[in-house]
Amino acid sequence: MKNTAVLLLSCPDQRGLVAAIANFLLAHNANILHADQHQDGELKLFLMRVEWDLHGFALPLADFPAAFAPLAAQYRMTWRLAEAAHKPRMAVFVSKFDHCLADLLYRYQSGELHCEIPIILSNHEDTRWLAETYRLPYQHVPVSRDAKEEAERMQLAILHDRKVDFVVLARYMQVLSPRFIAHFPQRIINIHHSFLPAFHGAKPYHRAFERGVKLIGATSHYVTETLDDGPIIEQDVARISHRDTLDDLIHKGADLEKIVLSRAVKWHLDNRVLVYANKTVVFD
Amino acid sequence: MKNTAVLLLSCPDQRGLVAAIANFLLAHNANILHADQHQDGELKLFLMRVEWDLHGFALPLADFPAAFAPLAAQYRMTWRLAEAAHKPRMAVFVSKFDHCLADLLYRYQSGELHCEIPIILSNHEDTRWLAETYRLPYQHVPVSRDAKEEAERMQLAILHDRKVDFVVLARYMQVLSPRFIAHFPQRIINIHHSFLPAFHGAKPYHRAFERGVKLIGATSHYVTETLDDGPIIEQDVARISHRDTLDDLIHKGADLEKIVLSRAVKWHLDNRVLVYANKTVVFD
Amino acid sequence: MKNTAVLLLSCPDQRGLVAAIANFLLAHNANILHADQHQDGELKLFLMRVEWDLHGFALPLADFPAAFAPLAAQYRMTWRLAEAAHKPRMAVFVSKFDHCLADLLYRYQSGELHCEIPIILSNHEDTRWLAETYRLPYQHVPVSRDAKEEAERMQLAILHDRKVDFVVLARYMQVLSPRFIAHFPQRIINIHHSFLPAFHGAKPYHRAFERGVKLIGATSHYVTETLDDGPIIEQDVARISHRDTLDDLIHKGADLEKIVLSRAVKWHLDNRVLVYANKTVVFD
Amino acid sequence: MKNTAVLLLSCPDQRGLVAAIANFLLAHNANILHADQHQDGELKLFLMRVEWDLHGFALPLADFPAAFAPLAAQYRMTWRLAEAAHKPRMAVFVSKFDHCLADLLYRYQSGELHCEIPIILSNHEDTRWLAETYRLPYQHVPVSRDAKEEAERMQLAILHDRKVDFVVLARYMQVLSPRFIAHFPQRIINIHHSFLPAFHGAKPYHRAFERGVKLIGATSHYVTETLDDGPIIEQDVARISHRDTLDDLIHKGADLEKIVLSRAVKWHLDNRVLVYANKTVVFD
Repeated sequence: MKNTAVLLLSCPDQRGLVAAIANFLLAHNANILHADQHQDGELKLFLMRVEWDLHGFALPLADFPAAFAPLAAQYRMTWRLAEAAHKPRMAVFVSKFDHCLADLLYRYQSGELHCEIPIILSNHEDTRWLAETYRLPYQHVPVSRDAKEEAERMQLAILHDRKVDFVVLARYMQVLSPRFIAHFPQRIINIHHSFLPAFHGAKPYHRAFERGVKLIGATSHYVTETLDDGPIIEQDVARISHRDTLDDLIHKGADLEKIVLSRAVKWHLDNRVLVYANKTVVFD
Repeated sequence: MKNTAVLLLSCPDQRGLVAAIANFLLAHNANILHADQHQDGELKLFLMRVEWDLHGFALPLADFPAAFAPLAAQYRMTWRLAEAAHKPRMAVFVSKFDHCLADLLYRYQSGELHCEIPIILSNHEDTRWLAETYRLPYQHVPVSRDAKEEAERMQLAILHDRKVDFVVLARYMQVLSPRFIAHFPQRIINIHHSFLPAFHGAKPYHRAFERGVKLIGATSHYVTETLDDGPIIEQDVARISHRDTLDDLIHKGADLEKIVLSRAVKWHLDNRVLVYANKTVVFD
Repeated sequence: MKNTAVLLLSCPDQRGLVAAIANFLLAHNANILHADQHQDGELKLFLMRVEWDLHGFALPLADFPAAFAPLAAQYRMTWRLAEAAHKPRMAVFVSKFDHCLADLLYRYQSGELHCEIPIILSNHEDTRWLAETYRLPYQHVPVSRDAKEEAERMQLAILHDRKVDFVVLARYMQVLSPRFIAHFPQRIINIHHSFLPAFHGAKPYHRAFERGVKLIGATSHYVTETLDDGPIIEQDVARISHRDTLDDLIHKGADLEKIVLSRAVKWHLDNRVLVYANKTVVFD
Repeated sequence: MKNTAVLLLSCPDQRGLVAAIANFLLAHNANILHADQHQDGELKLFLMRVEWDLHGFALPLADFPAAFAPLAAQYRMTWRLAEAAHKPRMAVFVSKFDHCLADLLYRYQSGELHCEIPIILSNHEDTRWLAETYRLPYQHVPVSRDAKEEAERMQLAILHDRKVDFVVLARYMQVLSPRFIAHFPQRIINIHHSFLPAFHGAKPYHRAFERGVKLIGATSHYVTETLDDGPIIEQDVARISHRDTLDDLIHKGADLEKIVLSRAVKWHLDNRVLVYANKTVVFD
């Protein structure tokens, strides 16, 4: 597999942007493998993802920020650079339902998710067996209603200690505080078991069943201060009928949740997701 | 094509129901073509659709109510009988968007929808050309904010005059009053351009675009007093991406709306839909 | 959970069948929970699945065959009875790809698949770790081109020894001989990694990639003597684009295969599948 | 709406291509609105679609070919330029089934398809009413088995006379000769009523019904000399069950065919489709 670099950027739209970036890369002998851009016509915003082969690239990545700075300043870019060979460190939070965790760990082990998993954190002991199966560190941090802040402090300490880059909430049933979220802006991925914005909040399958919908959904999004309101990364649905009991909804939904969360995590790891205006661009 | 009868019924669940109904029909020499039942375990409700060949059936349909009454009373059934050969009279309400109307009329003309269309009613003149193309009666009833009640009175008079059995709102952009709806309980079918309960009310595509969803939807439901809250008959979704503008959403959504509404209308005409507890059973 | 019995039957269609079966069950005080029937109009065939609560059922299941025999003979029925409490014994065959096996085992362990797994058989050692994780017996039976018959003899001996009821081929990459298949008629479930009948046989993803299809598929079917030609239980598809490499197809396909195979296995276990005319009826 | 130009090109992949094209356009003061590229890693091919605003563009489009020629030669590009304001002239061929024609005409009339329709050609009279509804020219060219060549000569004369740019076969049930096809390379779009390559050739719904598939499909593709084998532009599927008769398949399939064909035609008109290696790239 080639080692590649990915540049994700956004800036006010303006003439000559594509040429400027392509010329910068060419000047350092980059072989562009993918270049994808998007304009938001209403916000006059330019968003781009460009990936190039590092073989033959004449600029050491450590020197990239300094070399790119003038161009970035000229066009007022927000940007980040990622090296494909680098494996981000992902923490997984889980409660009692283990289907999403099991799915993520299987994909991790099979090489589908290009990351490290330095820690699995749970407010219960139920999923420890899965961590042990895959020989991954697991820590039980109980969360009681009265000592939530203390629990979050402990969680943050662990994440810091384990040098965690981003967090995946794999059906973690506790609401995180704004204080916690502020430590990982656009770096906490949640799976919500409904087609947002329908049935945000608690017990979505119960409410979907009661409402008599004909499709159920799942949504993966970045966590923001407002519950279930962050930028949506991926959604999908499955058909149900009057024959499906609440239990059937929960079972069929579990399969959706796994697929939708794993896609979102994979795209995040592949540096395909750019957030703006509480939405995502997912470059494909 | 065979002429058939369809019996739709619901009652408290109890032992012997299937046998009792089958025996009643057999006693009159019915050849059952389809029998489908559903139990709602929570509500202890039994729901059934049974269809039989009228060829050889020994009981004239006019005598069915009297003959079936004792059984219906014994099991406390709510029931209705439909003869497949009978064509219900469907009114279509429309405003300016004509895609759903055009789709319904094409399906009507091609024989896919087994109904009569004695009247198309609109608060605008824009879609008259379609009615003329298919040689169907069209009436323009303007609806102003101040004279809504009067407009509804006129609409009701027309529906009564045309002996209309049920009403389809094919992107009709006026909210009907509870007084109007009471004349057609479970006999007004609406298409809402979102995946309900998400984005109920006005401008769903605008709000879907703003929220950054990855799928858009459409929902067909029976109209009740509460806006966009009636029993859902059918829903479907289509994938969108960050590349889709608001206009793209509206275009892709139009294709969804046509399909979802036409399915709901077809199932209603085929006597496949039973309403209970603000949900539908759609027998397949 | 209620203990229930399921009766699956097919016979020439004729008047009075539903009543006859309902009366037979009622005579033994059955409380019917689900009854679903299907007529094949062309073949004049009647197919039915009926499930009833065993609580209060007056006929011991051991006596069912004798008691039901006269009715079955009168209507020339093919039928089988299953008790929901009974757990069929399922063998899983696997080669090197482990995603379907991992998915089945996770579902088995979580209680979603109501069966025993007395043996996992493989022509390789690669997936032993999964069997060990779930503490299930695993046996390696090498299959060489020259000694296939001998390998099958050994496999059959193991299946016999383990009292296996049916076999699931979870991406097992060897073609089974007609002789082997004859031991498990309509009791071997395969997953083929294409939308059959497209790309039957070897290397379907390679051929799909080459053909430039816009959707890939997976098909689960009962195995018959003709390769990839048996009765289809379930199929599904996923969208791809020109951006997807052959490797992407293989990865996206793996997710499809898991879902499609697990649905087919679950329906088989729930006694929902009836085979006739090289097709399946899947009662829902 | 902005007037834009679209450049579609393919060439051997090589360093500096993106920069070279961006610089060429920038030199003439182009404001790039979309730029999308694709590399086929195996064939070492570079494919690109770039769209820019013609407002402020300093190079008259008539002079584009001469100005672009040196760059095109240097990189050995195959390319074509389209002006969005230009409406291609589309002929529609149809036989007796009218659902695809009706759908295309409705979309044409509503402004969704940016084209002219100078002629509708049919080997029957059945669909003339639709042409008349939309006030479009219709010509009946009978095709008999013995005089096919003559019929095609007449069709070609009409297409030539009407200055037709491309042809849509909207369920046209005659096979076109290689001689005919050679006049419109990659400019004849067909809708086939199956999920190709499954059920290519005649009577696909009959064969799908017989095979017992669980999904039916439709495929839109460019026509080549080999029947149903040309580059696929779009495919989609719909779920069916054992309850669906052959007639149900045909009805459900009709809805698929309309959607799939209209998407393909729209993408063709938007200059989004590039053909290579008997596949398509559909830029989104």
